[in-house]
Amino acid sequence: MKTRFTEMFGVEHPIVQGGMQWVGRAELIAAVANAGALGCLTALTQPTPEDLSKEIQRVKDMTDKPFAVNFTILPTLKPIPYDEYMDAIVQSGVKIVETAGNNPKVHMPKLKEKGIKVIHKCTSVRHALSAQKIGVDAISIDGFECAGHPGEDDTPGLILIPRAADQLDIPIVASGGFADGRGLAAALALGADGINMGTRFMATREAPVHPNIKEKMVNASELDTTLIFRTLRNTSRMFTNSVSEKVVSMEAEGKKIDEIGPIASGQRGKLVYEEGDSEAGVWSAGMCIGLIDDVPTVKELVDRIVGEAEDLISQRLKSIVA
Amino acid sequence: MKTRFTEMFGVEHPIVQGGMQWVGRAELIAAVANAGALGCLTALTQPTPEDLSKEIQRVKDMTDKPFAVNFTILPTLKPIPYDEYMDAIVQSGVKIVETAGNNPKVHMPKLKEKGIKVIHKCTSVRHALSAQKIGVDAISIDGFECAGHPGEDDTPGLILIPRAADQLDIPIVASGGFADGRGLAAALALGADGINMGTRFMATREAPVHPNIKEKMVNASELDTTLIFRTLRNTSRMFTNSVSEKVVSMEAEGKKIDEIGPIASGQRGKLVYEEGDSEAGVWSAGMCIGLIDDVPTVKELVDRIVGEAEDLISQRLKSIVA
Repeated sequence: MKTRFTEMFGVEHPIVQGGMQWVGRAELIAAVANAGALGCLTALTQPTPEDLSKEIQRVKDMTDKPFAVNFTILPTLKPIPYDEYMDAIVQSGVKIVETAGNNPKVHMPKLKEKGIKVIHKCTSVRHALSAQKIGVDAISIDGFECAGHPGEDDTPGLILIPRAADQLDIPIVASGGFADGRGLAAALALGADGINMGTRFMATREAPVHPNIKEKMVNASELDTTLIFRTLRNTSRMFTNSVSEKVVSMEAEGKKIDEIGPIASGQRGKLVYEEGDSEAGVWSAGMCIGLIDDVPTVKELVDRIVGEAEDLISQRLKSIVA
Repeated sequence: MKTRFTEMFGVEHPIVQGGMQWVGRAELIAAVANAGALGCLTALTQPTPEDLSKEIQRVKDMTDKPFAVNFTILPTLKPIPYDEYMDAIVQSGVKIVETAGNNPKVHMPKLKEKGIKVIHKCTSVRHALSAQKIGVDAISIDGFECAGHPGEDDTPGLILIPRAADQLDIPIVASGGFADGRGLAAALALGADGINMGTRFMATREAPVHPNIKEKMVNASELDTTLIFRTLRNTSRMFTNSVSEKVVSMEAEGKKIDEIGPIASGQRGKLVYEEGDSEAGVWSAGMCIGLIDDVPTVKELVDRIVGEAEDLISQRLKSIVA
């Protein structure tokens, strides 16, 4: 497939594996790159900027194809040395950065000076327009369906993607709700130049996620996600478990961040993703979890999605029009 | 276009104009039928079963093409003689009925005896499977984006449509979030056999809606809808106005239906739709309101949507794959 996205970023397929805290590590990113899609290493998964530099090098050791680093600025309980992480990125020779959370304006001069292409992920058309204005190269527009942070507008992809396509001039990656070739074909029809997937890539062989968690994902339906932190205006879509339910009930009781935060914080990533205890804390999952039925290799997944979308376009859709 | 939907219902285009309280009257339904799509007359918009019989006859006087009657069973403040409305429908010679709200099981024998085809509209895969089991002919699966009643699952079409396509054997109409040819092409890619639109048809010349309201719709964005009645588990998506805001704040205060109901009830349909006072009460609008920029005739709209979808499939999508 050839779109403005594949052309701009020099990848074979219009598919991005988006930044995922704890999960976006070198093995997964290299597998995605080698499968011809664009993987995003998650900067803040690395405990220090030095560790990030080493992790970027690890990806380079495993692939010579393009890959990106995700750089997410979000409210956190402890301060993070964002500038130092950004320095590690720009000095690493990485050619693509995915920004998310806040507008990346303050970091743009450093990025542009190095000729680094920027994909900014956001959840509304107005934020996408602001990002286009400050010179990002592409927008990843993230709908209500997505894992992690869907924003506070609750606009699903069916609306958000064509609205973004109407307003933006730069390439658009459709994010949230995608897990198969039907979604890819639909996104392209809606005006996107590619799709971003996180949850679907979690359930691949190469993802650094415990088999228990992958099994939970395969068995889950589209009804097994929960929005937490609504009351804090920092909404996050999580897999429904005892912890997410507890957080929601604490919010309903009017509890504040200093009480809720420690219950829900990502500190439990190790217990969930590495040790496979799905109840050890909250963990992100998008609604497309209902469309996930297996744990293929990254290459099997990418090839299947592209093949399915191509077949849909050249067979099913063509025959409807004929 | 030719799909299982167009074949089963004998219409030219895979487009349904879904039931809309107050708006689904003879002139609009006949215009939709004459444009080659499937219009649904809304049974309960008529004050009595006798009025419904007359309204069905009015449609027949304006078109000889197929059309449907929408029959919605929902919680209401005053009791409604559903059986008498259903008798008026089956005795009218109408060949297609759209059911919504509750499962239509009790009405199926009457409908099937007359050879009437049933499209059941629902908001979850489990309800769709129940409806398929009792013998409905097609499912209209209604996503979180929709106007009126999206249910309580909050599952958008990007997830709901492929999930329904995976589970159901009968034709599927994708509903909620559709307003243009991009949406039609996307729905077909996701596995639907057609699309249902309500809000988009409200902003047509033939819709019995005051020009002030149509102008409000043209100027609105995807952020201008509000969910009311969440606390009553009878969620409804409405145009954002002073009344919907008041209802939401009454709900937040824990007020109950006997206080909220009179504020929000559909009794104000005449003031809103006929007299054009957009603040006279709550009125339904889907998120696709952000994709509506004009007030065409029904035929212009239907032709444009089909043409746009055909062009997308045979040009844009084809060139991406080539």
